[in-house]
Amino acid sequence: MTSKAILGTIQRMDNNSKLSTQPYKGVRDFYPKDMSVLQQIFNVMRKSVEKFGYLEYNASPIEPSSIYQAKSGDEIANEQTYNFLDKAGRNISLRPEMTPTIARMIAGRDQKISLPIRWYSIPNVFRYENPQRGRLREHYQLNVDIFGGEPEIANAEILMVVHEIMTGFGASTTDFAIKINDRTILADIYKKFEVPKEKIKDVSRLLDKKEKVSKTIFDEALESLVGSEISKPLAEILSSPEFIIETLGIDNPGIKNVIGLIEKLENYGVTNLIFEPTLVRGFDYYNSFVFEVFDTDSENRRSLFGGGRYDSLTGLFSNEEIPAVGFGMGDVVLQDFLKTHNILPESLTPADLSIISVDQNSYDDVYLVARKIREFGLNVDIDISNKKVGAQIKRSVSNSIPFALFIGEEEIRNKKYNLKDLRTQEEKQLNLEEIVEVVKNSK
Amino acid sequence: MTSKAILGTIQRMDNNSKLSTQPYKGVRDFYPKDMSVLQQIFNVMRKSVEKFGYLEYNASPIEPSSIYQAKSGDEIANEQTYNFLDKAGRNISLRPEMTPTIARMIAGRDQKISLPIRWYSIPNVFRYENPQRGRLREHYQLNVDIFGGEPEIANAEILMVVHEIMTGFGASTTDFAIKINDRTILADIYKKFEVPKEKIKDVSRLLDKKEKVSKTIFDEALESLVGSEISKPLAEILSSPEFIIETLGIDNPGIKNVIGLIEKLENYGVTNLIFEPTLVRGFDYYNSFVFEVFDTDSENRRSLFGGGRYDSLTGLFSNEEIPAVGFGMGDVVLQDFLKTHNILPESLTPADLSIISVDQNSYDDVYLVARKIREFGLNVDIDISNKKVGAQIKRSVSNSIPFALFIGEEEIRNKKYNLKDLRTQEEKQLNLEEIVEVVKNSK
Repeated sequence: MTSKAILGTIQRMDNNSKLSTQPYKGVRDFYPKDMSVLQQIFNVMRKSVEKFGYLEYNASPIEPSSIYQAKSGDEIANEQTYNFLDKAGRNISLRPEMTPTIARMIAGRDQKISLPIRWYSIPNVFRYENPQRGRLREHYQLNVDIFGGEPEIANAEILMVVHEIMTGFGASTTDFAIKINDRTILADIYKKFEVPKEKIKDVSRLLDKKEKVSKTIFDEALESLVGSEISKPLAEILSSPEFIIETLGIDNPGIKNVIGLIEKLENYGVTNLIFEPTLVRGFDYYNSFVFEVFDTDSENRRSLFGGGRYDSLTGLFSNEEIPAVGFGMGDVVLQDFLKTHNILPESLTPADLSIISVDQNSYDDVYLVARKIREFGLNVDIDISNKKVGAQIKRSVSNSIPFALFIGEEEIRNKKYNLKDLRTQEEKQLNLEEIVEVVKNSK
Repeated sequence: MTSKAILGTIQRMDNNSKLSTQPYKGVRDFYPKDMSVLQQIFNVMRKSVEKFGYLEYNASPIEPSSIYQAKSGDEIANEQTYNFLDKAGRNISLRPEMTPTIARMIAGRDQKISLPIRWYSIPNVFRYENPQRGRLREHYQLNVDIFGGEPEIANAEILMVVHEIMTGFGASTTDFAIKINDRTILADIYKKFEVPKEKIKDVSRLLDKKEKVSKTIFDEALESLVGSEISKPLAEILSSPEFIIETLGIDNPGIKNVIGLIEKLENYGVTNLIFEPTLVRGFDYYNSFVFEVFDTDSENRRSLFGGGRYDSLTGLFSNEEIPAVGFGMGDVVLQDFLKTHNILPESLTPADLSIISVDQNSYDDVYLVARKIREFGLNVDIDISNKKVGAQIKRSVSNSIPFALFIGEEEIRNKKYNLKDLRTQEEKQLNLEEIVEVVKNSK
């Protein structure tokens, strides 16, 4: 009654038009087949990080804007973030990333929680940008972080976790590689080449985009920033790890850090690390170690995700600066990678069998039979459409349910039911215990 | 370096003050101990509904506001919803409930998805209200819905699912009861008593709040709405199911619906249903069957959650009106209920053991040992703090990790390690295979 009235009003209001069935621009609907794939991706993530003892945390997607605007001048905080005023005049944002949230929570934690802290989360994060391949306005992002602990050990562990997750998805170590760098190396290079302090941020931003532009454009941009006297030797040095090591020496702390990491990971059996001296990563808070995982596929050689060390972020919230390292792995780019390499999980259905009711008066008994089968640990779908048997079978097949069980008055009297394997078309008359056994054995 | 600079700016800006570590007003931070409880609650929900073959779906919390404003005049859509303009001038909302979203998705689905459709989701939903016990600005809400199928069977199944979930949490059927009603009964009563059409909505709203006000206030409010000639007999009739049945007769469709439900559920073994003729439930879109689960605890006799039948909501989005029934079960009120009845799940830790490094030069070897133990399917935490052994043990205990494994240079040479059960203080020297066996057997 009431909803009919509403519908009437709406129809008059909108000139008989209907509301769109599309979601908001740039976000996704997860129909069950997509949701099953996503949940399986989350399961691989959870299983991989829990092997290392990481504990799950979460928070609201609504955060005070101040925790992002702290990084003032940043493109992410200002232009790409959903910033709103609430009704009480508070500046609130939909989180564009999780790191400020975990820093807030770690700073505010119960002091009985002692270091090292290993936490993970799979939040949805929001970016106000024009949707394109691999970039949407909302995606899920696995966040893995270690607070405290020996920094070089924590850095190495983070890369082991990356390796565990990627191979957990079935990727081989030739499918991806990990670029690593230490930002202090760049700082030392800037110092050596006397790059003016006020230009450093722009030079770093340019380096961050190096892969996306041609060499000519890069060189021109660098020259316009620092002049050709600096830009030419600088570009040459930055083109090769060997030149960097020659210039700064093997005892440079950043270089020692990078080489140490490569050795530690080799010792652990991970050999797909590459020293990339121009690697910067977007976030301002990274202060030394940074890394980026990329797809080695020659046709799709692009960045998948990355992370780094941020030792001062908790200092925004408390006087205690807790050293930290971590990364964020987005689901959209990951799903593209898994598809490219044919390792995207297939969608699953929870139902082990579907009961097809052959006469409509039997539903009360059908539910009792279903309850018994469920007590044996199986998941049972019941078709309550009252449609013809053929239509009911079609629905079970389209839902990828492996078995159909036919029940009518006669079957209920005899306690024998026809079980059909919808994949092989094999059909057998069985009692309940036998049905449970056949279905369980086929799993 | 960079983050130090930021920190400096912020400190100057805010007169050396720090940002708050508190979350936004009315939302929760989930520290790992809380998150573990929440995940276990979600697991009970998932397991219970998947027994019945429900498929999980999800969508973005950002929705076009139009899908809520359709129910214009509704307090939820207008005053209690986070409504914003995006930068392109679109009206967007943070979803206050999931039903309009599922109706949108069902209306827009691939037509190969045939009825009945059983879907569930555990979205976070947002309400702009002043936080109080059981009511926050964001909570998680299990949504369970059936689209299509025989309506009376679907209604009954929804109550079976409710029963499955509640008992899945360990609640006994005396801990809760389910009030049921059919809104068409009320419509028939209004007709019989000639309640003016323009007063019906207000009378229904008053009934919805009946439990929250005294009898005197209720009677006065009803009288002021419809006058004493109608209000007195109406209040009397509404006070008892027997009077309702007497007045409308046993063949009234709504009454038959309610009695049929009670019989079906009794047949299934569920006997805690109560016919409550004044039950309305807040949402305008419910058109017949409604229900509400409540805590029977005499000190906390309050509504836990509810649902009902909404047969026209997909009509907002398409010409096909698909009959539907479902409910939403919020986590905050549920957690209060589980606490009251001492059945709140305890928090768990993923790590099966923590490696305590007795000298700092062994970390490379420690990680190799950990890798081997992980290959046996155990989750291994490593303390990389370089602190004294006592402090490392304290950390493991406070993280509820059951075992500590002590590793130094000597242990690595001998391939024998001390394993300590942190609950019993028992300590044994074992090789890797023995360690795995002991830890697995203690699970």
